[in-house]
Amino acid sequence: MNLGCYAEGRWVNSDGEGVILRSAVNGEPVASASSDGVDFAGMVQYARRVGGANLRSMTFHDRAFMLKALAQYLNESKKAFYALSTQTGATKADSWVDIDGGISTMFVFSSKGRRELPNDYVLLDGPPEQISRQGTFTGQHIYLPLRGVAVHINAYNFPCWGMLEKLAPTLLAGVPAIVKPATSTSFLTELMVKHIIDSGILPAGSLQLICGRVGDLFNHLNCQDVVAFTGSKSTADFLRQHKNVVDNAVRFTAETDSLNCSILGPDAVPGTPEFDLYVDEIVKEMSSKAGQKCTAIRRIIAPSNVSGDLVVALSQRLAKVRIGNPANKDTEMGALASIDQRQEVIGRVEELKTESSIVYGAMDGFEVHDADAQKGAFFAPVLLHCDDPLKSRTPHSVEAFGPVATVLPYQNIGEAAELARMGEGSLAGSVFSADNDFVKNIVLETATYHGRLVLINRDCAAESTGHGSPLPHLVHGGPGRAGGGEELGGVRAVKHFMQRTALQGSPTTIAAVSNCWIRGAKENVSTAHPFRKTFEELNVGDTLHTDERTMTKVDVEAFANLTGDIFYAHMDAKEAARNPFFEGQVAHGYFIVAAAAGLFVDPPLGPVLANYGLDNLRFATPVNIGDSLKVRLTCKQKTFREGMGYGEVRWDTEVTNQDDEVVAAYDVLTMIATAETMAELPPAAA
Amino acid sequence: MNLGCYAEGRWVNSDGEGVILRSAVNGEPVASASSDGVDFAGMVQYARRVGGANLRSMTFHDRAFMLKALAQYLNESKKAFYALSTQTGATKADSWVDIDGGISTMFVFSSKGRRELPNDYVLLDGPPEQISRQGTFTGQHIYLPLRGVAVHINAYNFPCWGMLEKLAPTLLAGVPAIVKPATSTSFLTELMVKHIIDSGILPAGSLQLICGRVGDLFNHLNCQDVVAFTGSKSTADFLRQHKNVVDNAVRFTAETDSLNCSILGPDAVPGTPEFDLYVDEIVKEMSSKAGQKCTAIRRIIAPSNVSGDLVVALSQRLAKVRIGNPANKDTEMGALASIDQRQEVIGRVEELKTESSIVYGAMDGFEVHDADAQKGAFFAPVLLHCDDPLKSRTPHSVEAFGPVATVLPYQNIGEAAELARMGEGSLAGSVFSADNDFVKNIVLETATYHGRLVLINRDCAAESTGHGSPLPHLVHGGPGRAGGGEELGGVRAVKHFMQRTALQGSPTTIAAVSNCWIRGAKENVSTAHPFRKTFEELNVGDTLHTDERTMTKVDVEAFANLTGDIFYAHMDAKEAARNPFFEGQVAHGYFIVAAAAGLFVDPPLGPVLANYGLDNLRFATPVNIGDSLKVRLTCKQKTFREGMGYGEVRWDTEVTNQDDEVVAAYDVLTMIATAETMAELPPAAA
Repeated sequence: MNLGCYAEGRWVNSDGEGVILRSAVNGEPVASASSDGVDFAGMVQYARRVGGANLRSMTFHDRAFMLKALAQYLNESKKAFYALSTQTGATKADSWVDIDGGISTMFVFSSKGRRELPNDYVLLDGPPEQISRQGTFTGQHIYLPLRGVAVHINAYNFPCWGMLEKLAPTLLAGVPAIVKPATSTSFLTELMVKHIIDSGILPAGSLQLICGRVGDLFNHLNCQDVVAFTGSKSTADFLRQHKNVVDNAVRFTAETDSLNCSILGPDAVPGTPEFDLYVDEIVKEMSSKAGQKCTAIRRIIAPSNVSGDLVVALSQRLAKVRIGNPANKDTEMGALASIDQRQEVIGRVEELKTESSIVYGAMDGFEVHDADAQKGAFFAPVLLHCDDPLKSRTPHSVEAFGPVATVLPYQNIGEAAELARMGEGSLAGSVFSADNDFVKNIVLETATYHGRLVLINRDCAAESTGHGSPLPHLVHGGPGRAGGGEELGGVRAVKHFMQRTALQGSPTTIAAVSNCWIRGAKENVSTAHPFRKTFEELNVGDTLHTDERTMTKVDVEAFANLTGDIFYAHMDAKEAARNPFFEGQVAHGYFIVAAAAGLFVDPPLGPVLANYGLDNLRFATPVNIGDSLKVRLTCKQKTFREGMGYGEVRWDTEVTNQDDEVVAAYDVLTMIATAETMAELPPAAA
Repeated sequence: MNLGCYAEGRWVNSDGEGVILRSAVNGEPVASASSDGVDFAGMVQYARRVGGANLRSMTFHDRAFMLKALAQYLNESKKAFYALSTQTGATKADSWVDIDGGISTMFVFSSKGRRELPNDYVLLDGPPEQISRQGTFTGQHIYLPLRGVAVHINAYNFPCWGMLEKLAPTLLAGVPAIVKPATSTSFLTELMVKHIIDSGILPAGSLQLICGRVGDLFNHLNCQDVVAFTGSKSTADFLRQHKNVVDNAVRFTAETDSLNCSILGPDAVPGTPEFDLYVDEIVKEMSSKAGQKCTAIRRIIAPSNVSGDLVVALSQRLAKVRIGNPANKDTEMGALASIDQRQEVIGRVEELKTESSIVYGAMDGFEVHDADAQKGAFFAPVLLHCDDPLKSRTPHSVEAFGPVATVLPYQNIGEAAELARMGEGSLAGSVFSADNDFVKNIVLETATYHGRLVLINRDCAAESTGHGSPLPHLVHGGPGRAGGGEELGGVRAVKHFMQRTALQGSPTTIAAVSNCWIRGAKENVSTAHPFRKTFEELNVGDTLHTDERTMTKVDVEAFANLTGDIFYAHMDAKEAARNPFFEGQVAHGYFIVAAAAGLFVDPPLGPVLANYGLDNLRFATPVNIGDSLKVRLTCKQKTFREGMGYGEVRWDTEVTNQDDEVVAAYDVLTMIATAETMAELPPAAA
């Protein structure tokens, strides 16, 4: 099997001699990979010219629906991925994380894209900034998709998830990708890319693949491109300093392995649920994916008075982990990714042994089921113990990327935090404790050294996703040794592939650019009530100015009695005047907004189907008895809801009094029917 | 004057021979600078040990008040800064940007800190993320101040603003700074730091100063430190690749000069206000600070059919710019920062001349008032014109850092956008046009190449802050040639000095860590109504569960008639049933929240002074006639307002029906009196 590269819209199969990729289970050749003959400059140009243009012609929601369709398609063909995945050494459970985990990441990004991003082309960042007295000149930050390509350099341990977790935010942002999987397991990535291309779901140019070397790819990148790297620190550092990356300030984000810690609280003594949960989690993290996870627990930080019990408990559990052929359903731990990788891990354990002792396991002589221990890259769990971890270097700096971890005893919370920090930057840490004061203290003292901190106790353990699992909702990455980058985290990740720009100009110009009306921008006032317009007919800026209503004492007290809100300030002028903010009896805030609706609502059935909420309501000036209120209601933003028969419309609403002082300002949220929905409404009753 | 370094809490004056700094106006020595003998490792340790600990013991609001006090202090002593500033070549107007601009940046950050950040230690990033079905395990992103030091490397052109614009967000974040001004104008920075230290407003360790070289400073930085660089691209690239910066993934942000463009729209022909505004702005940008601004307009992109008129208009205006002694009040343009700098600019103009012609100005023989043209670093404005800018390289890549700009004619909007992009990344761009379609098109096509885009027309010009002025509210920085970094932008800048961490755990644990209650966390229910508690007595998590109220047809119709909101769905069961979301007559959303208040409000005068708003109100389930509603009200977040006699309390509010379905969920915002305020309320009327 000669792996292909997918470049400039077609598969390129090199006829040159490629690197031979071997099964992790039996060492037999699985495929060969070579990118000889690929035109890397052409790939970059194609991504920019074809892929970027295609993706930018879609809205965020269009792209989110595309991700959903792709996730559904991959979900239907996943049997093929599972079958090939065993050749990487992965058990079924390992493959589930890689394959189903990757697909579910696409689903989450699709859903967040539709919920948290506009059905439009420009993403607003924050509210307008007031930068002038009269408000004729205003500021607004926006995000637009970079006009370049995202180069994804992925690690060997998650050939599917590694691609999909970067692809989802990249495509949602509107940026094409060139994916370069680690060569040793690229056969599985290639299979998935073949399915993706065959699906026809992605527009031309949005995804290209390099199996093999990247050649001169990096020479063609510029300030509109992003390199998103996962892998070893040495490669990250090398690429980060590529002359062209530096010269053009090419965006570079790295996620590298780190010496992640898990801390056991002093309350979590043997016999507590937290102690048992800790033992379970460490065994799971050591054996899952044979410990080849950049988030795996490497440093077990435990109170010195329980570290003996802990070693015993861990040893008993590790002894039960069944190692062998990952295709066999009874296997709990498969092989490392390659024989080379096993040699690497052995070397690192030897380094660790200079300051720690092995307290469980051995690097040879262990039992392997249903596979040849020599031909396959098998390696059994090894647990070490360091007597003086505060004075040792290797437990905090040497990573054996396999089922290997070291117990580091601590005397007090200060030492526990210091040991955590000695990792000098981690992707993920965890704390097992039912004592929230201890947990809070550890978070405040160590969080800045971590991209993610998991805080486990008996209350949340049943639903916990675990120490080692990055989630699409939460950022993944960490400072220092972890690479200093950030991925995932929902919409945060989408922004990594966009440029933030501060706009300054007249409110009308800003509104025209952003498709979102802001205060001070031109109002479209017509005789037709905007509530009579269908979603299609309504325009951003359409405005209604209402008549006035006087707030009488009788009405305020009637409102109080009807709603039950008989707060003294609404009922008794003298008591109200004791309040530092009021001079006398005032109307309810709830009456103000309800009366405002009374002024702006157009009663008969029409396109406005429902008011589904309010945002950012602020009462600016008290309404005294006798004040007269009027309302300005302006269509601020439209979000079409594909397939729902309506769109959401946000109305900028301002209630002012007889002196034109702002009394209340807020956004009213409505669902507005399309013309088609209006035509299909049931007829009025006779 | 031998400039001092402020290190480890004391002034160090090197007795070694320093670099001689000379007046830009007459070449006379002003000071000498040397950092020989400074212990850079000691400075870093001191910042971490003393400065960081001091700053982290303060809340965001404490630090914001500190910035305000410092800005007020500097404002009172600014005469001294203005007096020395002329030696840098700056006119009074130039100094105003540097000195008053810097101080006002501190004020803005102080104000934003109190308005947009919590009066607490942990900053939340976004809402909780739902990551489990039952909600017993949840996600929340937080920011905490980095436990390191921010190293500020500043440019020579703004010795005051350059320091203060970085210092404000750094200190607000809770991170100490080591400031390293460019040596040539460091005498002014040193004077300001002396005032800052003398004020005693900053806690020990929060600010240190290096005048002279940085020695081995960079060797001592780690993953908790930040380098914020402003200056030349070559120095940025050198420092970015410092071995220790790469090894420890030290955060590095750079702001370098760029070839900023300003585009004249095709509508803005001679005779229009926009044409005149364009001429004014270009002359201002060329002459202000003698063109030594990283944001200055270097590339004048104008329609080819008006470029002749434009050159004439610009030449007439530039001829009137009076060059000379910056201390003289009639001087409109001062000197460049040094004789070396003048030589540098001359060299760059020669390079530009290979593809463009000088159409106004000359590099010698110009008139200089009240100063010696030879001894001072004077340079007169030079305007160039490039005939074929799409095929030329130098106008887009060679920057003469002085009063120099090049006219680049375009034929159509595509060419205008392409010319803008040829700058390969800019800090600031601008568009002068009254045609918002043209402006929108330019923004969509070029914004990703810019950190900031200013869109000027006749409506906003009077209040415009101009092309070249970074504002504290808006991001400053840009992709590619501009360094790829980001500064300012209000709270965005504060986050550059903090670490974002994803927390996962039980809602109760997350709430304990963040001091913000979230749904699912433990509720403190007591017999005392929480509205009877003063701000001090109230605790996050204090909860009230109310009685039920049934929503009757009579009440709904009474509400409609009282408020005037007679929307058909509240009045007519049959019409309501035509609406796809309703089965019959439903209560008003406004009635639901008002009735909820009726259930949770405790009427007599007490610590709750006012409801000042609602946030994130969503109606989840329609309320039908006969439904019974009840409310859970929980103290979510407390924000003490220093000196106001009250604090703001945000209440998480959930209205449920008889089937425990959520009907409405929102935050109620209240002002709650302190015990002292309660004691001082006027007595009840007899």
